[in-house]
Amino acid sequence: MALTYLHTMVRVRDLDASIAFYKLFGLEETRRYDNDGGRFTLLFMSVPGQENSHIELTHNWDGDDGLPSDSRHFGHLAYGVDDIYATCQHLMDNGVTINRPPHDGRMAFVRSPDNISIELLQNGDPLAPAEPWTSMGNTGHW
Amino acid sequence: MALTYLHTMVRVRDLDASIAFYKLFGLEETRRYDNDGGRFTLLFMSVPGQENSHIELTHNWDGDDGLPSDSRHFGHLAYGVDDIYATCQHLMDNGVTINRPPHDGRMAFVRSPDNISIELLQNGDPLAPAEPWTSMGNTGHW
Repeated sequence: MALTYLHTMVRVRDLDASIAFYKLFGLEETRRYDNDGGRFTLLFMSVPGQENSHIELTHNWDGDDGLPSDSRHFGHLAYGVDDIYATCQHLMDNGVTINRPPHDGRMAFVRSPDNISIELLQNGDPLAPAEPWTSMGNTGHW
Repeated sequence: MALTYLHTMVRVRDLDASIAFYKLFGLEETRRYDNDGGRFTLLFMSVPGQENSHIELTHNWDGDDGLPSDSRHFGHLAYGVDDIYATCQHLMDNGVTINRPPHDGRMAFVRSPDNISIELLQNGDPLAPAEPWTSMGNTGHW
């Protein structure tokens, strides 16, 4: 096979905050490269046991003025989860806003510390509608 | 496994131009969803034979004013290739600018029609340095 998908890269302002955020979903740190000369860190995180699931977090130690606070240019990263309600509750318990709650038991959106849009999809059939999700309002866009 | 990586989504202005662009690398269209009511198309493309290699192209039929011409917010999509010189030549022959030529026989960057940054990495060991790549200048940033 001549072509291999490798990773999706996103730039982050605060590396520790981003690592903590992605760990909330269950991603694990798999590789780290600190470049003292270039003053940047590349940190790879993956879904345990799943090949080709890498995201690369690029952190420029001296900041990155080119990072807008929001962007429609990039779409989102998507992850399937076994219990979308439990996942969203876990995120809320850790201070993450559920921008698009799983009203339908199927789909939710949150934002990373750098406003990267993250889609969560229930694996298999949607869950039965349940509170507080059914009546929870949307926050911002995603 | 509770978590599954699904895809990376990017928004595109011209769906046909983007499909043609990603096909230059060898990606194939795997799923298409046209939504007449919402006036958008979701088009999935994957690396043949490789699971979890999906990109989702989102095309809003009436345009998307939120799409900036460039963004540092999103990093890049990355693909491994068997012959980075042949891949770059094929892209050039089809009108694609090689923003960062593979000077080192190892790494190149191009931009999609929507300025999404695409990284190409030589699979395995780097190729021996060769012209015209060694002396080809960079174009813009990536």
